[in-house]
Amino acid sequence: MLKAIVVGASGYTGAELAHFLTRHPEIELAGLYVSEGSLDKGKKLSELYGNLVNVVDLPLQPLGNHDIKSVCEGIDIVILATAHEVSHNLAPLFLAQDTVVFDLSGAFRVQSAGFYDKFYGFTHQFPELLDKAVYGLAEWNDQAVKNTDLIAVPGCYTTASLTALKPLAEAGLIKQGCKPTINATSGVSGAGRKANVASSFCEVSLQPYGVFTHRHKPEIDQHLGLPVVFTPHLGSFKRGILASINVVLKDGVTSQQVNQAYQDAYADKPIVRLMEGTYPALKNVVGTPYCDLGWAIEGEDLVVFSAIDNLLKGASSQAIQCINLRFGFDITTSLL
Amino acid sequence: MLKAIVVGASGYTGAELAHFLTRHPEIELAGLYVSEGSLDKGKKLSELYGNLVNVVDLPLQPLGNHDIKSVCEGIDIVILATAHEVSHNLAPLFLAQDTVVFDLSGAFRVQSAGFYDKFYGFTHQFPELLDKAVYGLAEWNDQAVKNTDLIAVPGCYTTASLTALKPLAEAGLIKQGCKPTINATSGVSGAGRKANVASSFCEVSLQPYGVFTHRHKPEIDQHLGLPVVFTPHLGSFKRGILASINVVLKDGVTSQQVNQAYQDAYADKPIVRLMEGTYPALKNVVGTPYCDLGWAIEGEDLVVFSAIDNLLKGASSQAIQCINLRFGFDITTSLL
Amino acid sequence: MLKAIVVGASGYTGAELAHFLTRHPEIELAGLYVSEGSLDKGKKLSELYGNLVNVVDLPLQPLGNHDIKSVCEGIDIVILATAHEVSHNLAPLFLAQDTVVFDLSGAFRVQSAGFYDKFYGFTHQFPELLDKAVYGLAEWNDQAVKNTDLIAVPGCYTTASLTALKPLAEAGLIKQGCKPTINATSGVSGAGRKANVASSFCEVSLQPYGVFTHRHKPEIDQHLGLPVVFTPHLGSFKRGILASINVVLKDGVTSQQVNQAYQDAYADKPIVRLMEGTYPALKNVVGTPYCDLGWAIEGEDLVVFSAIDNLLKGASSQAIQCINLRFGFDITTSLL
Amino acid sequence: MLKAIVVGASGYTGAELAHFLTRHPEIELAGLYVSEGSLDKGKKLSELYGNLVNVVDLPLQPLGNHDIKSVCEGIDIVILATAHEVSHNLAPLFLAQDTVVFDLSGAFRVQSAGFYDKFYGFTHQFPELLDKAVYGLAEWNDQAVKNTDLIAVPGCYTTASLTALKPLAEAGLIKQGCKPTINATSGVSGAGRKANVASSFCEVSLQPYGVFTHRHKPEIDQHLGLPVVFTPHLGSFKRGILASINVVLKDGVTSQQVNQAYQDAYADKPIVRLMEGTYPALKNVVGTPYCDLGWAIEGEDLVVFSAIDNLLKGASSQAIQCINLRFGFDITTSLL
Repeated sequence: MLKAIVVGASGYTGAELAHFLTRHPEIELAGLYVSEGSLDKGKKLSELYGNLVNVVDLPLQPLGNHDIKSVCEGIDIVILATAHEVSHNLAPLFLAQDTVVFDLSGAFRVQSAGFYDKFYGFTHQFPELLDKAVYGLAEWNDQAVKNTDLIAVPGCYTTASLTALKPLAEAGLIKQGCKPTINATSGVSGAGRKANVASSFCEVSLQPYGVFTHRHKPEIDQHLGLPVVFTPHLGSFKRGILASINVVLKDGVTSQQVNQAYQDAYADKPIVRLMEGTYPALKNVVGTPYCDLGWAIEGEDLVVFSAIDNLLKGASSQAIQCINLRFGFDITTSLL
Repeated sequence: MLKAIVVGASGYTGAELAHFLTRHPEIELAGLYVSEGSLDKGKKLSELYGNLVNVVDLPLQPLGNHDIKSVCEGIDIVILATAHEVSHNLAPLFLAQDTVVFDLSGAFRVQSAGFYDKFYGFTHQFPELLDKAVYGLAEWNDQAVKNTDLIAVPGCYTTASLTALKPLAEAGLIKQGCKPTINATSGVSGAGRKANVASSFCEVSLQPYGVFTHRHKPEIDQHLGLPVVFTPHLGSFKRGILASINVVLKDGVTSQQVNQAYQDAYADKPIVRLMEGTYPALKNVVGTPYCDLGWAIEGEDLVVFSAIDNLLKGASSQAIQCINLRFGFDITTSLL
Repeated sequence: MLKAIVVGASGYTGAELAHFLTRHPEIELAGLYVSEGSLDKGKKLSELYGNLVNVVDLPLQPLGNHDIKSVCEGIDIVILATAHEVSHNLAPLFLAQDTVVFDLSGAFRVQSAGFYDKFYGFTHQFPELLDKAVYGLAEWNDQAVKNTDLIAVPGCYTTASLTALKPLAEAGLIKQGCKPTINATSGVSGAGRKANVASSFCEVSLQPYGVFTHRHKPEIDQHLGLPVVFTPHLGSFKRGILASINVVLKDGVTSQQVNQAYQDAYADKPIVRLMEGTYPALKNVVGTPYCDLGWAIEGEDLVVFSAIDNLLKGASSQAIQCINLRFGFDITTSLL
Repeated sequence: MLKAIVVGASGYTGAELAHFLTRHPEIELAGLYVSEGSLDKGKKLSELYGNLVNVVDLPLQPLGNHDIKSVCEGIDIVILATAHEVSHNLAPLFLAQDTVVFDLSGAFRVQSAGFYDKFYGFTHQFPELLDKAVYGLAEWNDQAVKNTDLIAVPGCYTTASLTALKPLAEAGLIKQGCKPTINATSGVSGAGRKANVASSFCEVSLQPYGVFTHRHKPEIDQHLGLPVVFTPHLGSFKRGILASINVVLKDGVTSQQVNQAYQDAYADKPIVRLMEGTYPALKNVVGTPYCDLGWAIEGEDLVVFSAIDNLLKGASSQAIQCINLRFGFDITTSLL
């Protein structure tokens, strides 16, 4: 039985992680932590999430940097559901305690000079960890995930977008010079649990935001190997992301080639479901770890749709996939 | 042409008031004010409420107590959409400038010793104004409203509840010793526009709150003349209140007597719609100034339903009704 | 390994049942059936419910009365998620094949002369089965459920209401002559999956219906042993029921007595969660098998709130509880 | 005072038209009609739309072809909110009675051989009316609208898309060979009021539909003069359309040129609001006649967003705009 802790457990993703780990037959959830300054310190997780009463009643313990050594005693797995800068600072400390670290922030996702200065507003202090970190896009980097101790779990928009686009890019089907355009709509939980007028019930309605400025755009570019145009939207629902992606195909690419590219990529991947004769809908993936993909072609124009639960495949369940890969469990353990 | 200003104009009710006044043929909207410390100070109202772009583009001006005299020059009507304590302090200052004050807070609604200490946490400083203030339940106090300069516009739950119960109480149809029970559900806008985890999109779901402690319960008791059991609920919708009210009728009261009581009260009141053969639904009143009433009887048990838009009949449009009454305009002016 | 089939599997409840059974370690889901005339005949369940793709891909097979003998070969458990009249006709046929029948319709819930004529519009043909049928309110009738082959699983409003009221009634705390009043709001899934203007997206808003006429009112009266006033409402959400119940307590009943009554009833029942210092909210129970109860008292007035997922504790998960009871499995098997 | 009738008045668009006409100071709403076979025949409009009780209580009268002459006595304006084939058949009959016909269906929108055979499944019988019909995109065809008796009011997706794209196309700013891609999400009311599993409350979630097959795609192509890739989506909200449009600009086109194109097109058009420093949101347009436009540019990539209320600017209020143009009233009469 492995032992895992979750740091930053009071947020939506932390709560989902705690729930998954409780159901995992090979892992014991050994502790939940929040920052020392958190107002939720000392509360039970189920005081924040009433659905977890009698399910996950562990307390949210305060974590200071000096506590890390003692906290890590007997611990195999550390999951960071913390802010980017916090993860950046904590990951090396936990790695020094011989734990395997799964980080859900952006702090170790992109190996590119100047990236963090430009998009995250801080200078990365651990370039050697950036080199070592493996991008935890579970269906694509499974071998690398098995051989590292620092996994950078991808962002939600990124997971939806890359799962749809990588098969086309890898198969060389995208017309050069024509950027794929991604229009994606996320549920409000993507903004986290903190109070905010913009995510208050009466203020939410479908609208774009972060146009040409969202951090997931360079993350997609980097891991796709191609530039994209990415436009995120806020939708009036709690959970889920639907990405609608327009691609111009290379001259002569056939429908069969596209289908083959998706089959090659995902026929043996249980978490990605390829739709036939239909398209993804949010209701089919919300509350599940799945990524549903559907597409259509007319002439050189392809539209591909990708749907996930932003808190699950876009964060917590993908982290569990990575844990399952890293420790040799079945990829769907605790997820289905 | 009368001139009106709105104080506390940045909230949901303030925005609705500004919109109504813009459409009022006999009144000019002369200014919008917020507190000196407001973060919205200096913004146009339409920067906060994008629906009002090109409709109400007036700026939100800061208002300090020393500004009141100059602000009131040429002003006939002051509408206070401010917090209880703020209204309590401002009303006498505006009255001193010979304006007619319509207050949407609870500061002048209940004439009862110790009420404000107990339910609002402050000692009322202006008992003579409390005596002078008229409770602006428009269908019931029209004569008194015409003859005062301080109108206390009722709360949202109170309006829904009293409109349903007063005809029965006035006609003496309610069994003594059996308290009417009110279960009412309000849209999230009732909590106002400030950021708050409890009213954030992902946190809202149908649930009771303020059980046996809500301030509108003693307000209902006072203006009904009977004690009630009142249970408010938060609903997962933006606007509207539905009150479902159980009443035990006096022995021998007939269906006809109940119908007659409602007819007597509202047959000539255009804002209250009596449903026949059907029941109120929120969709029929949201965005309108109406209060819809429907009821059914079985033996001694009566159920009556009352539906309003909490921001309109429960606040802003009822204030406009009071203004129309006070200045002799048709009661529905600018509302339909 | 027991074998189970679901009849009427194309509806919302049927789909949930199929999903639970797939996860049940002691039961094999052996078949899904719909009526011979169903338009969904021959489709995979996952064609109707995209969330179940790769999860429950069994086909919906047509079932005629003459098929029952062959269908039952090797089958231990039959779950009827069919219309009242259909269940009424099918149950005896399945019982004759030595299966244990769990019926989710109203066909066997109430032993009372004339009940079905009055409230369901048909004359019951099987009074001996009505006598034999056990009402599957899992927390209350566990012993009886173990000793019958026909379990009538309660309705959704009824489950929410009785779980809240039975402890008070059994402990004799309710004032005689004062009917408890139940105001309950159900999600739209309670109306089933068929197309209907009233349950179309644009038409739904909070409103009462079935006032003094809903079939669950006499079902509550019968199993509570007291008459109630019951008012159902449609809410603008997909799943869940919140019942807000007003009770007048007998003279002198204390808060402690009420708390004790709930503790006595549910302290050892894992599916009922008693809230302390807080109240139920729909979000905490939707997607779970729980019934959450919370209450408050002021003088003789008690308000108790009960929240369930109408499709789960109000139908499918309670059926699984009954199966677990009947066959000696842990009560929460496959549910948590 | 002109007199108008609405045919097909029982649908969502018909109800909105009736409401606008009731408020129009220069027009009298003289009658509401439905087909002879309609189940709503004889009902008051307000029986279907409870919000219109005491507002529009006219009955829905049955209309047969032989009634048209008598129905048209004294009538100046006929608005057809009927199905495509019905409008196709009725328009010539009403034109023969010297009325001015505003048709909200697709029956007279596209002058292109074979269009109706291919996209609507019928052969158009009135090519001379197709020639005469003016496409009622109010901000673009105002002169032509003034000089015809048959106005084909555009579709909802089309209005949102063309309002955003026409300024760019007219100014020649779009790169040749790069099709604009339109991803648009519509509220459920776009599917009309009829019962349908797909638009039932529990079934709706964000999803694409009609990929490469929606009738509004050729309507957009035709009136834009360029081919587009158009992908409609169903959103989980009642009203509104947001179109998110990706465009590749011609080499060297500047931000200033784009801004100028929009200013040139709409600076004097009160119904189109150009956003500065922000983007459209559905909440700002729902319930209003506005089209809100916002855009951003990075290099050659432009994203433009267009938001409307699908039932208003996408249907009924645009029809009123056309009426106002045709008869010389101020363009916003009865709309603001």
